[in-house]
Amino acid sequence: MMFAKIDTPAVLVDLDIAEANIDRFQAHCDAHDLAVRPHIKTHKLPMLAQRQITAGAIGVTCQKISEAEAMIAQGGIDDVLLTYNVLGPQKLARLQALAKRVRLTVVADNSTVVQGLAATFVDATDPLRVLVECDTGAARCGVVSPEAALSLAKRIAEAPGLSFAGLMTYPPDGRDAEVQDWLSRAKALIEDAGQPVAVVSNGGSPGMWRAEAVSVATEYRIGTYAYMDRSLVARGVARWSDCALTVLATVISVPTQTRAVIDAGSKVLTSDLLGLAGHGHVLGRPDITVAGLSEEHGVLTASEIGLTVGTQVRIVPNHACVVANMLDHVELIRGDAHVERTPVVARGQVW
Amino acid sequence: MMFAKIDTPAVLVDLDIAEANIDRFQAHCDAHDLAVRPHIKTHKLPMLAQRQITAGAIGVTCQKISEAEAMIAQGGIDDVLLTYNVLGPQKLARLQALAKRVRLTVVADNSTVVQGLAATFVDATDPLRVLVECDTGAARCGVVSPEAALSLAKRIAEAPGLSFAGLMTYPPDGRDAEVQDWLSRAKALIEDAGQPVAVVSNGGSPGMWRAEAVSVATEYRIGTYAYMDRSLVARGVARWSDCALTVLATVISVPTQTRAVIDAGSKVLTSDLLGLAGHGHVLGRPDITVAGLSEEHGVLTASEIGLTVGTQVRIVPNHACVVANMLDHVELIRGDAHVERTPVVARGQVW
Repeated sequence: MMFAKIDTPAVLVDLDIAEANIDRFQAHCDAHDLAVRPHIKTHKLPMLAQRQITAGAIGVTCQKISEAEAMIAQGGIDDVLLTYNVLGPQKLARLQALAKRVRLTVVADNSTVVQGLAATFVDATDPLRVLVECDTGAARCGVVSPEAALSLAKRIAEAPGLSFAGLMTYPPDGRDAEVQDWLSRAKALIEDAGQPVAVVSNGGSPGMWRAEAVSVATEYRIGTYAYMDRSLVARGVARWSDCALTVLATVISVPTQTRAVIDAGSKVLTSDLLGLAGHGHVLGRPDITVAGLSEEHGVLTASEIGLTVGTQVRIVPNHACVVANMLDHVELIRGDAHVERTPVVARGQVW
Repeated sequence: MMFAKIDTPAVLVDLDIAEANIDRFQAHCDAHDLAVRPHIKTHKLPMLAQRQITAGAIGVTCQKISEAEAMIAQGGIDDVLLTYNVLGPQKLARLQALAKRVRLTVVADNSTVVQGLAATFVDATDPLRVLVECDTGAARCGVVSPEAALSLAKRIAEAPGLSFAGLMTYPPDGRDAEVQDWLSRAKALIEDAGQPVAVVSNGGSPGMWRAEAVSVATEYRIGTYAYMDRSLVARGVARWSDCALTVLATVISVPTQTRAVIDAGSKVLTSDLLGLAGHGHVLGRPDITVAGLSEEHGVLTASEIGLTVGTQVRIVPNHACVVANMLDHVELIRGDAHVERTPVVARGQVW
């Protein structure tokens, strides 16, 4: 068995592969003079954040304060972009504490968020850097027009304790020209009004190999690229051999010649589909479909399943970022060698 | 705001509702002389397992050894059915330790599992009780015919250290007559061969209110009933007011009149659909669709969204069991009163 000493189901992270992924994208961006700001929500591991900085990243991106706290405490990170509208007394108090420990930038897409930040940082020695989040087509958060971006940028610039630092977007994949146009217009409007736009932050693993297409961007936020996954292989962004995160599972039942059951279900693989059919790719067995998941069971089907009870299989999940968040620990490997078990430091917290 | 002191996103568990759910189903089964063996994978909380026993349950069901260990250590539980094929040296060693602390029953659906159990328990003072898992139509684990059940029952009965204790199935919902027929035939075959079939374990929350329809069953395993969820409301099994588990979220952005974004995404609500469209039900706002989830964002849509930034909303998720597994803590409430934060003891472990 490949990893007989590792009890299953387990999340394996191949450091050789992850490091190669990190280095390859850093080189791509270096060649295009684009800064890299990795999103640590994918791995939640201080050691990989450090590795990303060593490779050349200018800082990290976090989605929650607890993620930033973990990276600072254990990862020695000193530059954090928190790409989230921070609201409410508990989060604002923690944000204030965070800003004293690190070069912190946050985002805002509405005046309620700006008011909360301004009230919290009114007496801060260093103003808090705030980017305006822009909806360039993904229809999640973000101001919906360049004019609205200008309006919010002015509010930020006028607030004591805050400093307008630029623009940020979570872009719709495959619509680079639209994104470029939107952000360029917003930047021009704001600069014409006298405010410099120092940072334009774009991102997303699906568009990683054409990151430079949105040339107005100064930095690229990217998470999944460290691990890759089935969704990115399906989009042509990675190969199976680039997938650093796999789920190790054991075949626990082979009821028929066409069906086997493994001990990995939705509580480790998750139900994320990302537009795909099936719940993962069994390495070395492209003929197998991960046809169904219940909480602790995965059902594999094939015209000839050819597996025996007790056999280990490795599965590339549809979406690595959510799988890395499911268990308290991941198992670090290099090729066939087991390195060590490590806690997923920044998981399980409310915010 | 309803729970202003609770930071979001948070998983709320209303104990008044959970206790009423537990008592109502126990009364239903008492009236039909059917034993209840709750599945604690839903809540993973020793205090609720204790409450289920107090209500009249004969013991609990667990899906993983770590769940059983947590229930024994903190819940004072002394009777556990582990409804899983246990395989491999690590798990078998832990199973052996578990069997010394509790009245333990496991299942098997193949001879490899039986051999592993037999080798582990060959010298045990008390034989380990083993049920034969039967596939009565759900096409997950289980022997695929009553004749195969007889054959495996014989192997178990012949193994020193093991004791054949009966049959177990995870049934296909809505096919009670098939399940009854399958299990009755298997029971008759095995009893005709001289082996008593003491236990016939059936289960499933979707079929809970007709649990007695499979009259050959002696006990009913049930998990989600304690919390209920959107999938069970959709199936007519529960009302919104029976849903004990909700996700408390805050509106962080209202980009348009038809769209709002909340701070609960797939890392708390999960992507489980269970055949439904949308990712949850916003209590009090049946007109809202939880249209999309990314990891830390949920997108709400409605013809008139009518929400403001900072407002809290409560969402009944599609599937309560997986949501209870996402965060390290849940917030216990009773109606509008916050009782306390409690750790989800049995979550995050490999097995």
